[in-house]
Amino acid sequence: MDVNERLEKLEQRLQVVEDTEKIREVLARYGFNADLGRSTDWVGVWKENGVYDLGPEHKPTGHDGLLYDVITSKGHKSIENHSQHTVVNHFIRIDGDKAWAEAYSIVFVKEGDGYKPWTCGYNHFEFERQGDGWLLTLRYRRPVGGDEWGGKVIKAYLSE
Amino acid sequence: MDVNERLEKLEQRLQVVEDTEKIREVLARYGFNADLGRSTDWVGVWKENGVYDLGPEHKPTGHDGLLYDVITSKGHKSIENHSQHTVVNHFIRIDGDKAWAEAYSIVFVKEGDGYKPWTCGYNHFEFERQGDGWLLTLRYRRPVGGDEWGGKVIKAYLSE
Amino acid sequence: MDVNERLEKLEQRLQVVEDTEKIREVLARYGFNADLGRSTDWVGVWKENGVYDLGPEHKPTGHDGLLYDVITSKGHKSIENHSQHTVVNHFIRIDGDKAWAEAYSIVFVKEGDGYKPWTCGYNHFEFERQGDGWLLTLRYRRPVGGDEWGGKVIKAYLSE
Repeated sequence: MDVNERLEKLEQRLQVVEDTEKIREVLARYGFNADLGRSTDWVGVWKENGVYDLGPEHKPTGHDGLLYDVITSKGHKSIENHSQHTVVNHFIRIDGDKAWAEAYSIVFVKEGDGYKPWTCGYNHFEFERQGDGWLLTLRYRRPVGGDEWGGKVIKAYLSE
Repeated sequence: MDVNERLEKLEQRLQVVEDTEKIREVLARYGFNADLGRSTDWVGVWKENGVYDLGPEHKPTGHDGLLYDVITSKGHKSIENHSQHTVVNHFIRIDGDKAWAEAYSIVFVKEGDGYKPWTCGYNHFEFERQGDGWLLTLRYRRPVGGDEWGGKVIKAYLSE
Repeated sequence: MDVNERLEKLEQRLQVVEDTEKIREVLARYGFNADLGRSTDWVGVWKENGVYDLGPEHKPTGHDGLLYDVITSKGHKSIENHSQHTVVNHFIRIDGDKAWAEAYSIVFVKEGDGYKPWTCGYNHFEFERQGDGWLLTLRYRRPVGGDEWGGKVIKAYLSE
C-alpha cells in the first residue's frame, strides 16, 4: 500500500474504534438520564421514530410514545433518583452509518438501608449516526428469566 | 521519524486498541453463550487445550473436559436462561500474539420475582491470538470471600 | 490535508482513545487495590493532594488523609478480601493533560453464603496526566438514594 492508502485505512479503523466508544457513551447517557429524572434528555438519545420493544404487546414508539410510557410508568417513577441503570458486556458492531450492540442491563435500586438488583435484561440495540454522534433506533429488551428465551434477543453476535 | 515510521507506529498502536476491544468481546461472548445454553459456542471461545482453574483440585481442561464440567454441573444447568454472566473492571494487556486480562465477574440469577448476585469472582484470564480473533487459554477464578486470598488471582496488573 | 497533517491528526485522535482506556484502567486498579488490602497501592492512584469528596463534611484529602480515612474506617476493613469494587457506565473526556469521568460504582460483598450489592454510588472523577499515566485528583461520590440529588454529581456529561 502507498502512503495515502495506509492513511485512509488507519482513518477508517480509528473511526470504528471511536464510534464503538460513542455507542458505549450513548448507553451510559441513557442510564444517567433515566436515573436522574431527565426525561427530555432521556428521550433525546432516541431517534424520533425509535422503538422500545419490551414485549409482543408493549412497544412504545417515537418520542411521544416513549415519554408517555416513562411518565405514566409507576415502576419508573417509583425508582427515580434511587436507581442505577447499568449496561455491561457490550458487544458492538459499526457498519457505516448504522450500528448495533448486544449487552446486559442491570438496574439496581435502593431498598430500605440496602440495594438490590431490581431488573436484569437481555438487550439488542440498534443505532443510526447523526452528525458526530449516534441515536438509538431500537432497544429490544427481555427480562432475564422471563417467558421468552434470551437467545431470541442476544443472537446477532453469533454471526461475527 | 519519517512518514513510514510514523505510519508503522500508528498501525501498531491501533492494533493494540483493537485487540483490547476484541478481548472484551471474547468475555462478553463467553457470558452470552454461558447464559443461553450454547455449550458448543461457549467451549469454542477456549483454545483446544484451555484450562479453567477453579481451585487446586478442580481444573477442567480441554474442550472435552470443559464441556463435561459444564454439562454435568448441576449449578450451571440450574441457572441457564435465567442467569447473566457479567465481567467488569477489565484490565487488559496485549503482548504480540498473547494477552492477559484481570477482571471481576458477577453472575446474576433470577430467584422468585427478583434477582440476586449469585457469585462474585476474582479472575485472571490468558489468551492467544487465532486469525483475526483471540482464544482463551486460561481462566483462573476464585470466589470473592473464598478460602484463597484474592491477591493471588489479581496481581499481574501490579507490574504495569 | 497533506500527509503530515493527516498523521498529526491521527496521532492526536489515537492518543485520546488510548487515554480513555487508561482512565478505565485507573478505576479498575483502584478497585483491585481497595478490595485486596493494598492500601499503599490504592493511595498511589491518587495525586498527592487528591480529594475524596464523600459529603459536605467528609472530604479526606491528600495521601495521608485518604489513607487515614481508609485505615480507620470500620466499614472498609470489615469487607476487605470479600468485596468487589466495580465501576460501570464510564463516560470519559480527555482534555490535554486533564480528564474527567462520570460513572456508576457498585460494591458487592459476600454475606453468609451469598452476595449483595453493599453500596451503589453516583460518581464524578477528575484526573491529571503524569508521565504515561493518570492520577486521580478528585472523586466526588454520593450514594444512590441518598440525601443529595444524583444530578448534582453526574452532570458534566450533559455539556457534551
